[in-house]
Amino acid sequence: DGRGENREQAEKNVLSTFQTTTVLSDSAREKTIFVHGKFADQNAVVILEKTPIREDTLSEIFTASTLKLDIKNDIYSTYRLQAPPHLNEMKATVVCPATEKHVTKYQRQESVLVEETAEDYQSITLPFIQKQSFSVQWVYNILEKKAESERIVFEDPHPKLGFVLLPDFKWDQKQLENLYLIAITHHRNIKSLRDLTSEHLPLLQNIFQKGKEAILQHYSLPASKLRVYLHYQPSYYHLHVHFTKLGYDAPGCGVERAHLLTDVIQNLHSDPHYYKTRTLSFPLRADDGLFSHFQEAGKL
Amino acid sequence: DGRGENREQAEKNVLSTFQTTTVLSDSAREKTIFVHGKFADQNAVVILEKTPIREDTLSEIFTASTLKLDIKNDIYSTYRLQAPPHLNEMKATVVCPATEKHVTKYQRQESVLVEETAEDYQSITLPFIQKQSFSVQWVYNILEKKAESERIVFEDPHPKLGFVLLPDFKWDQKQLENLYLIAITHHRNIKSLRDLTSEHLPLLQNIFQKGKEAILQHYSLPASKLRVYLHYQPSYYHLHVHFTKLGYDAPGCGVERAHLLTDVIQNLHSDPHYYKTRTLSFPLRADDGLFSHFQEAGKL
Repeated sequence: DGRGENREQAEKNVLSTFQTTTVLSDSAREKTIFVHGKFADQNAVVILEKTPIREDTLSEIFTASTLKLDIKNDIYSTYRLQAPPHLNEMKATVVCPATEKHVTKYQRQESVLVEETAEDYQSITLPFIQKQSFSVQWVYNILEKKAESERIVFEDPHPKLGFVLLPDFKWDQKQLENLYLIAITHHRNIKSLRDLTSEHLPLLQNIFQKGKEAILQHYSLPASKLRVYLHYQPSYYHLHVHFTKLGYDAPGCGVERAHLLTDVIQNLHSDPHYYKTRTLSFPLRADDGLFSHFQEAGKL
Repeated sequence: DGRGENREQAEKNVLSTFQTTTVLSDSAREKTIFVHGKFADQNAVVILEKTPIREDTLSEIFTASTLKLDIKNDIYSTYRLQAPPHLNEMKATVVCPATEKHVTKYQRQESVLVEETAEDYQSITLPFIQKQSFSVQWVYNILEKKAESERIVFEDPHPKLGFVLLPDFKWDQKQLENLYLIAITHHRNIKSLRDLTSEHLPLLQNIFQKGKEAILQHYSLPASKLRVYLHYQPSYYHLHVHFTKLGYDAPGCGVERAHLLTDVIQNLHSDPHYYKTRTLSFPLRADDGLFSHFQEAGKL
């Protein structure tokens, strides 16, 4: 079928029309690059990331690759290895059309640690969040099965206590080493950790319990191998919980941004307004809209 | 020349005779894998690492690769990209013959997350710590200026509130990007976070304040660029505080092991026995002596 072949051909070459404007950031450690550019007259961001090396492809990599000797010293030698393309894929993510905000988000930026008091939240952060009205349409698409429904690993449909569990975009699902799932609440009015009170304990316990069970069932990974946490600030203001594999150095699992769900539950048990009253620290990038608001308030 | 061609052929396929015994460790984030195996009857370790994505190869990657659509949702789409092999090399390191020590060095130890209740601490962890009587002689040597005295960046000599601040061994002090200092208390009877109560608030506040000031003075790095935290479990049972640069992905700064000093201070302010009564989560390696004690108690 000619049309089918043309369609496939077009899909294969979608990046060939991409015109690079600038590299926003890259990581030699993680083998990623974030590129800003255009498809025709549309702004876009293209993210390339090399994929983890899979154990089940090792013997084929060893036998089917070509090698060039680089350095030899005593018992150590290094080679440049070229593997067959199907054994050495990259992951390409395209954001198109991309807004100014996307471009800023992926741009490498220095961060400072903000110590946000309860008053700072009310007078600086909350008004900023409300004025921005960040779109979470893509979250609603997931909750309403308008997108990614085939990716859902588990769902508890309860409107107050329920959630959808699905793999994070960052996880290619090829190996458990970097397992990364997100539980997104059906409840739509909890923006972040700051909104949580003891009335949300049943929701949090439900996510913790059923999330762990679903991951055990689908991936045979027991709860003791999981790091379960929330971000503050989150990257979008609709409550969600991160499940990553312990030992996987997931981006954003540092103490300055992550809050273990078990700690959140304990803290709310002993103080129903713990997160409404505490000073919370978080890293804030200089190009984040919130940064200038803290600066204007004389807090940085 | 037939021999020349044979030699090149042999070099290209040096890995084809490698027989994998086991995968010692891998990193999905860094795209590395460490493999133990044999070349004929010689023990060897082979390390594969994907190479960073180079800006100067981007346009060729975009035009010469093939893509398969993976997910599409709203403005986001992800693809599996197969690049020409010469644009997507790996680095292969061969250690041959490898000793037992090489194998151990590259072996990952699996960790599990332990949820240690206050009772678990009293009945399992504390007796283990006491029986082990881990030597902290090297700490006393520092406090008494018998060792590393030339490395001390700052000292407050007060016996109850004082501390010594010095660079961590992991920091080569060549650049600020991975700044890592340790504050070691002169007070000798605080084993860890578990021992802290509100009576230690003056000590903790003193370390926080003077530690930040000393780092500003010596390194011109302001407090807003610092991540200041304790480990639980610590690697030695004499109270110490970590100061690392925000943005440096320091080992051990993950939410499962690190506790921000500002959070510790706040928690002790509102509950003098916070850390004596809480369930604390921490990762525990299977080869840690404490592991079997938790196992025997039926807690793992």
